[in-house]
Amino acid sequence: MSDEEQGIKMVMAIIRPDKLSDVKTALAEAGAPSLTVTNVSGRGSQPAKKGQWRGEEYTVDLHQKVKVECVVADIPVDDVVEAIAESAHTGEKGDGKVFVLPVESAVQVRTGKEGNPAV
Amino acid sequence: MSDEEQGIKMVMAIIRPDKLSDVKTALAEAGAPSLTVTNVSGRGSQPAKKGQWRGEEYTVDLHQKVKVECVVADIPVDDVVEAIAESAHTGEKGDGKVFVLPVESAVQVRTGKEGNPAV
Amino acid sequence: MSDEEQGIKMVMAIIRPDKLSDVKTALAEAGAPSLTVTNVSGRGSQPAKKGQWRGEEYTVDLHQKVKVECVVADIPVDDVVEAIAESAHTGEKGDGKVFVLPVESAVQVRTGKEGNPAV
Ligand SMILES: Nc1ncnc2c1ncn2[C@@H]1O[C@H](COP(=O)(O)OP(=O)(O)OP(=O)(O)O)[C@@H](O)[C@H]1O
Ligand SMILES: Nc1ncnc2c1ncn2[C@@H]1O[C@H](COP(=O)(O)OP(=O)(O)OP(=O)(O)O)[C@@H](O)[C@H]1O
Ligand SMILES: Nc1ncnc2c1ncn2[C@@H]1O[C@H](COP(=O)(O)OP(=O)(O)OP(=O)(O)O)[C@@H](O)[C@H]1O
Ligand SMILES: [Mg+2]
Ligand SMILES: [Mg+2]
Ligand SMILES: [Mg+2]
Repeated sequence: MSDEEQGIKMVMAIIRPDKLSDVKTALAEAGAPSLTVTNVSGRGSQPAKKGQWRGEEYTVDLHQKVKVECVVADIPVDDVVEAIAESAHTGEKGDGKVFVLPVESAVQVRTGKEGNPAV
Repeated sequence: MSDEEQGIKMVMAIIRPDKLSDVKTALAEAGAPSLTVTNVSGRGSQPAKKGQWRGEEYTVDLHQKVKVECVVADIPVDDVVEAIAESAHTGEKGDGKVFVLPVESAVQVRTGKEGNPAV
Repeated sequence: MSDEEQGIKMVMAIIRPDKLSDVKTALAEAGAPSLTVTNVSGRGSQPAKKGQWRGEEYTVDLHQKVKVECVVADIPVDDVVEAIAESAHTGEKGDGKVFVLPVESAVQVRTGKEGNPAV
């Protein structure tokens, strides 16, 4: 452990489903291969999109997204955030967000290890 | 940014699926339209409910719920919690919970913006 | 409330799907019956597993897991973590992780109760 011990962090990203593969590769390259993926839907700051189906107007207000959660301890959390933000980027509206949450403790179930080595 | 800078918060609510539409409307009216939705199941403090199907007794111990996550920075988090709690309310057991978690940083993927403006 | 008030915590565990039933029982016995369950997929620190299907090689890099979230206030969070870690254990790679995150506030939607009694 170094002087700059950052503690354990959860990086939670909401991304486009078709960017998951690039994000996984970028995370592995950044030294953070472990992750948990959840199918979610959501909306950002844009108003709902309107469409037509068989003459009926409908509103698409939730878009399919993927949530990626990546708990890290021994590598700089900023590197992990940057790896996700770069690999998830298209430049079009709807690219998503990356949030960092504090984690107070961690246990690896198989070994019973706690703290940074558990992550 | 004001003196009363609250930081970034994640409001995580577990609600009835049929209240999602009301909660989305209430959040938009409260100035917090952005949200992420996940299908979940869960149980609260009540013991499992027993039923019968074709003569067999079974136990329903996990109920379908919806998780709503809403990260906010520039509007008071208490207003967001209240908007959800009011719009998700029926008065019957199983209405759900609202939790607030601290968030240390945020990035908007399309623009690279960080902090409050990213939320 | 005691001198040793720990605050509200979210225990988030990623476990094997076939361990969910044992984990639910262990949590109820530990006095923490309330929980939220999400179907997720993920990978830990092992490289992807390779297989063959009809002569084609494929890579399984995300495994089905279950996320269990359990917010607690009045019982020691370490007891809850231990209950999950013990009941989710097989000793084989892939048993999962338990993380603890701080929670700043809680509301029970039906009653409007706040803080520890809301959890
Ligand atoms: N503040 C937020 N809280 C919770 N989830 C959010 C938030 N902002 C965005 N999300 C999630 O991220 C997804 C993508 O958001 P999106 O990229 O559209 O954000 P945006 O702020 O509208 O940015 P852009 O202008 O680039 O579209 C949403 O569908 C939602 O699931
Ligand atoms: N402490 C908790 N930790 C994690 N999830 C919870 C917790 N309490 C409730 N939930 C989630 O919220 C859902 C609804 O809970 P519920 O409203 O039944 O809570 P309750 O405390 O039993 O209140 P009520 O007496 O009004 O039923 C549960 O199915 C579960 O998904
Ligand atoms: N650091 C992490 N961040 C986010 N999710 C994780 C992390 N580590 C593990 N997980 C989740 O837990 C699941 C199981 O992980 P796993 O038990 O394989 O971890 P491990 O560190 O490889 O331990 P083992 O050597 O016992 O396999 C993963 O599929 C993933 O969903
Ligand atoms: Mg948008
Ligand atoms: Mg209940
Ligand atoms: Mg593993």
